[in-house]
Amino acid sequence: MHAVSQYQEFVAEYLQSQLEIKEPKNLYEPIQYILGLGGKRIRPVLTLMSAEVFDVSYEKALPAALAVEVFHNFSLVHDDIMDDAPLRRGNVTVHEKWNINTGILSGDAMLILAYQYFEKYEPVIFRDLAKLFSKTALEVCEGQQWDVDFESRIDVTIPEYLKMIEYKTAVLVAAAMKMGAIIAETSSENADLIYDFGLNLGIAFQLQDDYLDAFGNPETFGKQVGGDIIENKKTYLYLKGMEFANGVDKQELADLFSVQMEENVAKIAQVKEIFLNSGAANATQKAIEAYTFKAFETLEKMDISAEKKHILRVFGEGLMGRKV
Amino acid sequence: MHAVSQYQEFVAEYLQSQLEIKEPKNLYEPIQYILGLGGKRIRPVLTLMSAEVFDVSYEKALPAALAVEVFHNFSLVHDDIMDDAPLRRGNVTVHEKWNINTGILSGDAMLILAYQYFEKYEPVIFRDLAKLFSKTALEVCEGQQWDVDFESRIDVTIPEYLKMIEYKTAVLVAAAMKMGAIIAETSSENADLIYDFGLNLGIAFQLQDDYLDAFGNPETFGKQVGGDIIENKKTYLYLKGMEFANGVDKQELADLFSVQMEENVAKIAQVKEIFLNSGAANATQKAIEAYTFKAFETLEKMDISAEKKHILRVFGEGLMGRKV
Repeated sequence: MHAVSQYQEFVAEYLQSQLEIKEPKNLYEPIQYILGLGGKRIRPVLTLMSAEVFDVSYEKALPAALAVEVFHNFSLVHDDIMDDAPLRRGNVTVHEKWNINTGILSGDAMLILAYQYFEKYEPVIFRDLAKLFSKTALEVCEGQQWDVDFESRIDVTIPEYLKMIEYKTAVLVAAAMKMGAIIAETSSENADLIYDFGLNLGIAFQLQDDYLDAFGNPETFGKQVGGDIIENKKTYLYLKGMEFANGVDKQELADLFSVQMEENVAKIAQVKEIFLNSGAANATQKAIEAYTFKAFETLEKMDISAEKKHILRVFGEGLMGRKV
Repeated sequence: MHAVSQYQEFVAEYLQSQLEIKEPKNLYEPIQYILGLGGKRIRPVLTLMSAEVFDVSYEKALPAALAVEVFHNFSLVHDDIMDDAPLRRGNVTVHEKWNINTGILSGDAMLILAYQYFEKYEPVIFRDLAKLFSKTALEVCEGQQWDVDFESRIDVTIPEYLKMIEYKTAVLVAAAMKMGAIIAETSSENADLIYDFGLNLGIAFQLQDDYLDAFGNPETFGKQVGGDIIENKKTYLYLKGMEFANGVDKQELADLFSVQMEENVAKIAQVKEIFLNSGAANATQKAIEAYTFKAFETLEKMDISAEKKHILRVFGEGLMGRKV
């Protein structure tokens, strides 16, 4: 096994070796651009790590890891068009740098390119990878559609919200890990368990993202703290706030989330106050812990050495940014 | 072998049996809508026909045929967004009926769904189909990008134009036929030959589309005659016109194609006059014949019965709408 930073380097090197700007340039340059913006490359790292957990060299997992990363970036390019986002990882988004049509078409090409990386594997593994990938990719689309649908609904339930983040975020983390298992040709039990590990960790990670959006340290969070509150995004915190807050606070929260303001400092402070007082903040932390715990429980059931379990656990703890 | 109209019915029936509107509705309803608009279903029919040419029942080819049709419709949905097209097959386009975001996301889902139909085949055939499909889909994206690029260029050459229509249109026709060959597990020589047959027929078909846009019978063409001229589209006819027309006519053609007019009757008449007088119309007909002939030549090399060759030839002649 290697350190996470090493896996990140393997991904970066392989990405560099695979990317070439072919003709037509207007199709391939945006792909090079978005993939070159970096990011933490968590998903491909998980594929490499998972392969080595099941005793196969990370090198065999590089094409699948890249497929996951290219797919993730495809979804970012298309999501940024849908959200009309100007920035991604501190840089101009593809559709802003070029135009919407280029964003659509380059995104389409990336989705196809992702499938092509699986061609490096022999037929049975190829089919298992592509099948898992298609199922996952479709779920990501469904998750994105739920997310869009929820914007105009006021009756979103907690189970619906959890399903949405599971599909939009967690299934790709889970699939990234299962791909390592498929490549290593481990038992289907192990493959399913590491999928569940990734799924629960992915949900915990997204819930933490919701939590940190309100309560994170502005210096380390990486995004604008309060961004979800400004955008009236119905996150876990908000839904729990609406469930737990008393009459007056509940009405205030609903009112605050029904308007767009120019100046948001007071709004953010008021909303955070309600999140804290209602117990929503606490409930969110509890949910994060519960999903992380579920992930670690799954880990215990896996047929791998104690050392491997320890490595995955430490990775999970690192991802969640604290000991649980 | 069956009649084309029967293959069309098999496709329609199988499509009906496969499509279900799942949740989220806003993702799946647009897919059902666009696939339900009909069209001639030429591409999936070719897959079924090709399978039977190589002595396998069309039934085995149904999932691959549907993959081709779903992919084709994916490309229509995304192209219609890029072209800002209000109508498709006489009906409102997806992004007009819903919105651009729905068009993007439902299109993405269709591209993934197309891959999933290949899962009905065993691993080796699955891989061969998915590989051919990915290569083809990427070429279609490249062709679409060339087409977009050509709009703002005045130096497009005939070989560049031919490459563009090959990628944007012909490779999918070719791949649709090769898929039948792959499913029938015929020789790779036969598979490559039927690909070439489809490729040349596809190019001939697109050139004929260019020709009929100017010189077709308004009652049978199905699209607005003169549409390419109104949009200043640099088709084969136009490029040949610019190559062959004398000084005055060449300047007039360039001028006519540099403006957008409100009233196009006179423009269409003038352009058609130049296409005819310059010899561009004739050269286009000759090119259509040459590509059709090339397709039929390829047919002769195939290791199939004379009867099967005859059926494919009659189909090609029917598609080109006349005896050559």
